[in-house]
Amino acid sequence: MEPRIDKVDFEARRKASLTLREHVLKVLEDIEGLRPPKLLIPKRTLSNTIYDPEKGILVLGEEVFERNLLDMGEARRFMQTLLMASIIYQALVENEYPTIRDLYYRGKHTITFRDLKGSIKEENTWDEQVESDSALRDLEVMTGLLREHMLILSKEKGKVVGDMRIKSGGDVIDLSRLGHGAYAIESTPDLIEFLDYNAEYVLVVEKDAVFQQLHRIGFWRQYKCILVTGAGQPDRATRRFVRRLNEELGLPVYVITDSDPYGWNIYSVFKVGSITLSYESERLATPKARFLGVSMTDIFGDKNKKPYLTEEERRNFIIKAKERDLKRAKELMNYSWFQTNKWKKEINMFLEKKVKLEIEALAGKGLKFLAFQYIPQKIQTGDWID
Amino acid sequence: MEPRIDKVDFEARRKASLTLREHVLKVLEDIEGLRPPKLLIPKRTLSNTIYDPEKGILVLGEEVFERNLLDMGEARRFMQTLLMASIIYQALVENEYPTIRDLYYRGKHTITFRDLKGSIKEENTWDEQVESDSALRDLEVMTGLLREHMLILSKEKGKVVGDMRIKSGGDVIDLSRLGHGAYAIESTPDLIEFLDYNAEYVLVVEKDAVFQQLHRIGFWRQYKCILVTGAGQPDRATRRFVRRLNEELGLPVYVITDSDPYGWNIYSVFKVGSITLSYESERLATPKARFLGVSMTDIFGDKNKKPYLTEEERRNFIIKAKERDLKRAKELMNYSWFQTNKWKKEINMFLEKKVKLEIEALAGKGLKFLAFQYIPQKIQTGDWID
Repeated sequence: MEPRIDKVDFEARRKASLTLREHVLKVLEDIEGLRPPKLLIPKRTLSNTIYDPEKGILVLGEEVFERNLLDMGEARRFMQTLLMASIIYQALVENEYPTIRDLYYRGKHTITFRDLKGSIKEENTWDEQVESDSALRDLEVMTGLLREHMLILSKEKGKVVGDMRIKSGGDVIDLSRLGHGAYAIESTPDLIEFLDYNAEYVLVVEKDAVFQQLHRIGFWRQYKCILVTGAGQPDRATRRFVRRLNEELGLPVYVITDSDPYGWNIYSVFKVGSITLSYESERLATPKARFLGVSMTDIFGDKNKKPYLTEEERRNFIIKAKERDLKRAKELMNYSWFQTNKWKKEINMFLEKKVKLEIEALAGKGLKFLAFQYIPQKIQTGDWID
Repeated sequence: MEPRIDKVDFEARRKASLTLREHVLKVLEDIEGLRPPKLLIPKRTLSNTIYDPEKGILVLGEEVFERNLLDMGEARRFMQTLLMASIIYQALVENEYPTIRDLYYRGKHTITFRDLKGSIKEENTWDEQVESDSALRDLEVMTGLLREHMLILSKEKGKVVGDMRIKSGGDVIDLSRLGHGAYAIESTPDLIEFLDYNAEYVLVVEKDAVFQQLHRIGFWRQYKCILVTGAGQPDRATRRFVRRLNEELGLPVYVITDSDPYGWNIYSVFKVGSITLSYESERLATPKARFLGVSMTDIFGDKNKKPYLTEEERRNFIIKAKERDLKRAKELMNYSWFQTNKWKKEINMFLEKKVKLEIEALAGKGLKFLAFQYIPQKIQTGDWID
């Protein structure tokens, strides 16, 4: 029995395989025209990674390089790029869903050839996954197809609940009827179709356990929100899913993390993208995402605001920042999207107080406090950082 | 608005809070009878951790120790145990769902007291989570209530799909209608009610990505199985869920992991329990779980069996074992449940060949090979290790 193929899945395969084909056909044309075959690949270097203030995300710049088959130093990587294209093409037309680890295994073999002097030599297509991963990234930027478009799976970590119906793989899933559990967001979130929903915003919670608590206490039901967690550093699928909720449904997105540079960085990855993989941001980042908290002024208050914690709670809950937290905070200060007044204040307050706070401390103060006071009050009074 | 409370949840809270109350009342009786208050706690030491060959799981032995309030060396831990009981009791009656991190925060404060000489001293209830975690474990063995019974949440990693309906938190969830996604197994799997199912066995897949692939290719639909992943080292909820599928529905359980000591250990945790937390095994372990593969004879074959990999595939796919893999294998050999003929052969073959193999290598050979040939053939021919 062949697997059930639904229309959305089929269409995704058709599109991706056609695009791959087009790119490879250009190489064939070069060969038939007796021109040295080459690939034109946008540079994935840091110097070609640019923050686009208009879009509010990280993007790849204009720099492109040529990879030539006839250049001895590039021939191997030329071969790797085309090998990756052919493995993925085959998986697409055969209705497979490889992972990046599979792609590595599928391509891994030894090529036997004669060198210029006629002796037999051996060369591995690739030895480590870092090489096949790099070939995949080259292919992504070259074709403009992200791995999700090519139906390549990665580990799933994200979860969602809320008053919303979606369609995936031919099934209608009611995200409001999942009991104490949740829907594990699939690796290919573009195959999800949004049906109907009754929600006013999206709340992204850094920590899985806090997500579970808010879910059980009925937070999303009472405050009409779609509740999402990336369970720590979010995977691509969670980021894409959140982006789609924001872009296609126009729902505002609030992110809640620990009050420390690690939490800020998670927010930053949702909002502007990942620095080392900026080419994904165009589809994965949610530039309008707002940092709801926990903020330093929530802990200590400021001239316009009473702190959410008492003196005693602060003594019990706050944790001393480590040297690497302070270092990370100073790094974040250099990023242009952290150079707003509110962020400067936040980071400076952290550097001055040298303490951090986990969301769990607020749940420790009382889950009802977190769910029915802290979060709704912050949203209602517009107390977030953009 | 108060959260929706369903009957199963309410009943769990009632039972757990009554049990906690009973244990604490005994302490009160001691005090009222002018007897030195004490707690009787089963020892959680390695020497009191026993493999019960009849049950096929690790259990705590008979050794018990007394924790006395009036013993200076034990007073602090006595207080911690009762503090933990009171925090959990409060959470139970207030319909909260704390995590172990919350419990730590809720109990963390400073006690001011006068010492024998009359000077004022301060003492923290606990400083690090390792102390509150230990108090929780003492409470678990003392009361016989696992944390799940006390509605304490932990991070969720497990996922399930299959032709089965379950009920959780008042919702009916159809595990066969989840599209490309899956149901994230809740932290309190005893609150799940099994409704109806159409399945002949349970397949537990170590790796999340392989789970996704088998799901997408329609494996569970074709072979009538409940497909589960623990995404690496399984959490308690996944183990409990699998155990319930085995025990209550009588479904055989097959576990498929990488072919290396790390994979064997994951199987071992599902089957007999975790060595350091043996008191959980009574409820979490599935002693009848079978190790389906990937086995060394799948890779190399033996006198009765053709290998599943060709010479060339072996060359491309197998990975050299590291020193720590060999060391781990030798440790596993000492465990009594690995001292069957089949396991000895497996481990010896590993120590001799000094190589390992990931499941992804089989998916790399072809997802269809893995799903429609390797797994069903192994099950059909009884080619597993018990």
